[in-house]
Amino acid sequence: MTEHPIRVAIAGATGRMGSTAVQAIANAQGLSIAGLLVHRANEGVLESLDRFGQVYVDPQTLIDTEHPDVWLDLTTPKSVVRHIDLAIAANIRPVVGATGYSDADIARWQAEAAKASLGGLICPNFAIGALLMMRFAKEAARWMERAEIIELHHAQKLDMPSGTSLRTRDAMGVDYDVPIHSVRLPGLVAHQEVIFGGVGETLTIRHDSLSRESFMPGVLLACRRVVELNQVLYGLEHLLW
Amino acid sequence: MTEHPIRVAIAGATGRMGSTAVQAIANAQGLSIAGLLVHRANEGVLESLDRFGQVYVDPQTLIDTEHPDVWLDLTTPKSVVRHIDLAIAANIRPVVGATGYSDADIARWQAEAAKASLGGLICPNFAIGALLMMRFAKEAARWMERAEIIELHHAQKLDMPSGTSLRTRDAMGVDYDVPIHSVRLPGLVAHQEVIFGGVGETLTIRHDSLSRESFMPGVLLACRRVVELNQVLYGLEHLLW
Amino acid sequence: MTEHPIRVAIAGATGRMGSTAVQAIANAQGLSIAGLLVHRANEGVLESLDRFGQVYVDPQTLIDTEHPDVWLDLTTPKSVVRHIDLAIAANIRPVVGATGYSDADIARWQAEAAKASLGGLICPNFAIGALLMMRFAKEAARWMERAEIIELHHAQKLDMPSGTSLRTRDAMGVDYDVPIHSVRLPGLVAHQEVIFGGVGETLTIRHDSLSRESFMPGVLLACRRVVELNQVLYGLEHLLW
Amino acid sequence: MTEHPIRVAIAGATGRMGSTAVQAIANAQGLSIAGLLVHRANEGVLESLDRFGQVYVDPQTLIDTEHPDVWLDLTTPKSVVRHIDLAIAANIRPVVGATGYSDADIARWQAEAAKASLGGLICPNFAIGALLMMRFAKEAARWMERAEIIELHHAQKLDMPSGTSLRTRDAMGVDYDVPIHSVRLPGLVAHQEVIFGGVGETLTIRHDSLSRESFMPGVLLACRRVVELNQVLYGLEHLLW
Repeated sequence: MTEHPIRVAIAGATGRMGSTAVQAIANAQGLSIAGLLVHRANEGVLESLDRFGQVYVDPQTLIDTEHPDVWLDLTTPKSVVRHIDLAIAANIRPVVGATGYSDADIARWQAEAAKASLGGLICPNFAIGALLMMRFAKEAARWMERAEIIELHHAQKLDMPSGTSLRTRDAMGVDYDVPIHSVRLPGLVAHQEVIFGGVGETLTIRHDSLSRESFMPGVLLACRRVVELNQVLYGLEHLLW
Repeated sequence: MTEHPIRVAIAGATGRMGSTAVQAIANAQGLSIAGLLVHRANEGVLESLDRFGQVYVDPQTLIDTEHPDVWLDLTTPKSVVRHIDLAIAANIRPVVGATGYSDADIARWQAEAAKASLGGLICPNFAIGALLMMRFAKEAARWMERAEIIELHHAQKLDMPSGTSLRTRDAMGVDYDVPIHSVRLPGLVAHQEVIFGGVGETLTIRHDSLSRESFMPGVLLACRRVVELNQVLYGLEHLLW
Repeated sequence: MTEHPIRVAIAGATGRMGSTAVQAIANAQGLSIAGLLVHRANEGVLESLDRFGQVYVDPQTLIDTEHPDVWLDLTTPKSVVRHIDLAIAANIRPVVGATGYSDADIARWQAEAAKASLGGLICPNFAIGALLMMRFAKEAARWMERAEIIELHHAQKLDMPSGTSLRTRDAMGVDYDVPIHSVRLPGLVAHQEVIFGGVGETLTIRHDSLSRESFMPGVLLACRRVVELNQVLYGLEHLLW
Repeated sequence: MTEHPIRVAIAGATGRMGSTAVQAIANAQGLSIAGLLVHRANEGVLESLDRFGQVYVDPQTLIDTEHPDVWLDLTTPKSVVRHIDLAIAANIRPVVGATGYSDADIARWQAEAAKASLGGLICPNFAIGALLMMRFAKEAARWMERAEIIELHHAQKLDMPSGTSLRTRDAMGVDYDVPIHSVRLPGLVAHQEVIFGGVGETLTIRHDSLSRESFMPGVLLACRRVVELNQVLYGLEHLLW
């Protein structure tokens, strides 16, 4: 634990994840908000955000003015890559929750950060429950004969199968086919079941995520622990086990 | 209730369903075994069956000798049609658990039985729990927005989707698409979930069938109640509600 | 359908259910807001509500001024009884979503309303999915041997077992004991499973309610159909089947 | 792998677990049956067993005649302690599937086996799926806020809560109370759910065991790997991870 709070810049502070994160970090022990990056700083935005921290529209100005310890990026595929390049260049530890970067981007970030032994975390999933599900699925796959995945989401989620189900299947690393079934219904939020079958028994691992709040323990964990790292890691699971 | 037990001929007495039914009917109040029809009456078969009732290989001989009240047919697509034709011609009430008949067969049985006001039951499913699931699915479909079906069976069941899932979807009678997901894994037996989604809520109906014994309450109900009918009905559900 | 919209007074408009209902009724076809009753009409309340309708603190003033068709009461045990007495006296059809009334209150409301053939609905549960669950549980109880109930709620719900689980058990009307298991965990919202066991099979009916929005289809149904009733009924299920 | 098959004596060969194990070991690669111990060697027993191996009623005679590599004990609380004492004294590796021994028995077996660096395994549960469930529950308990356990068994299982649920709770090692709910219904076999709750999410681990066959992969694993051990271990999980 550091004596002084870890100062976190939050990029994408008006988004759905971002606005939840602003409140979570403002209330978290050991963390403080170093600045908030928004796309457009109109009156409504300023009214809702400026009690939490200084609001910026330009990332470099935020960096030069506030010198944050950590850059938490919850923006969009369009902006995230440039933000993280700027943060690493300024020796600020990135926590990347946005998606849309390429393998080349990751490689570059890891190389640049390595020069300064800078810590960083790329987190395609902040839900600790989902990460546990993937870890258990990987372990169970070693011992059970076969598996199938059922992922169930609200009817507005058009893409299928879900990213989490694909990452779960990857994590299992088996050489047989693992079918993924995608259920889309109103009234659902975000759920996944991995069912393993063996001789006379089944083992099921299920994760139900009901709100964006479920990501916050992972976000806080990432912001707190990234300062102890000396390289850019992919996956929050590196902090869990 | 009749004073005398209802005398049931069991065709297919050595099959998996048949041998379970022989024991169930032998132990059931108000029912007795009038004769057992088998494909081949070798020594092993006789040894295992003759304490339950007289064993026959020819259906007409069984009919002429025993004059059963009810003909319970648990044979195969190959034999069932001829057996039921013979039973109805002899004024014996059919309970048809085998599959493989055509719509024309059903129509002929109903027409022939109507002449003598003979009762009969054609039962593609004897599991009362499965019939309740279908009934509830039909009712819920009136009130919930959308639905999907997940049917899960042991890895040896190669056909998909299952007949029960197709009949459930038919019973629901909705004008939107109801996707059916088929899971095949070792360690499963026979399971089905119908998930309904509405605004902010889901309703799930699940049936788990773990053994052929689950069909026996339906078999006994059919044999007991068919004697009160005066026409050939399709579906055990006619006796339930 | 009436030509003119049905004019609904909403009592308890600032509560959690009430504020959701205000938005739902404002946007519903065939319904309009006749007036909003609040406990205290401070500036914040007026700001959030007065675009939806005129705000009142006294029920009789609302009644005398607006002459609503329907009185939707989502207040508290403290106020509901007096409100409904006033509404019925003014020939306004009550839809009672609050709890805390006695059997004697119900009997009085039914007697008073009967004099004027006034319709009314007392709805301890507006969730159509939950009502379907209870109905199916009642039907399944006729055919399956035994049942147990598991109700699962968020950790803040201190009372156990839940009212819905008790009403479900009552509805089943069986003469054997039906154990109720109460699970209380963070991350849960409101869920219930009724598990029926028979020979070799189980049948499970599960309801998951994730938000107060799940009550709105029931609220709208009650407000629309109460005008066709000529007595005070207990239970939204009377409108469903 | 040894070149010669591992020779296993099976005690309790006529019991429910034992008779399943006899068939599993007879068909397993790398294992052979060294002898079968039964309580009473009447004609029926001999007829059903002697094609699998020589049948004995006295454990010492079996040991002296057959010199097995492994003693698999699936007997009862009454006999298991004496059997294992005899096996260890004769330098035969014990695999203990029966229950009913005391902590003092375990300590004595471990001490005696240590003198000869003899391997052994005490296995209160052979189901690999159940062991995975316990392991995952232990890991998840580190990260999730609270948990409850639901164990569901057939109506004939009178003891509650189940031994597996108690061992799961022990394995979790948390300092808060973990309620265990016991469901007993016909149509169930052996099932357990561990539900973890966190902020906005739940994680559920479920194990369904449908037949004694589910124990056989664990039995075979124990018999194969016990010969590589040089001490008596408690729990099949030592061979899994």
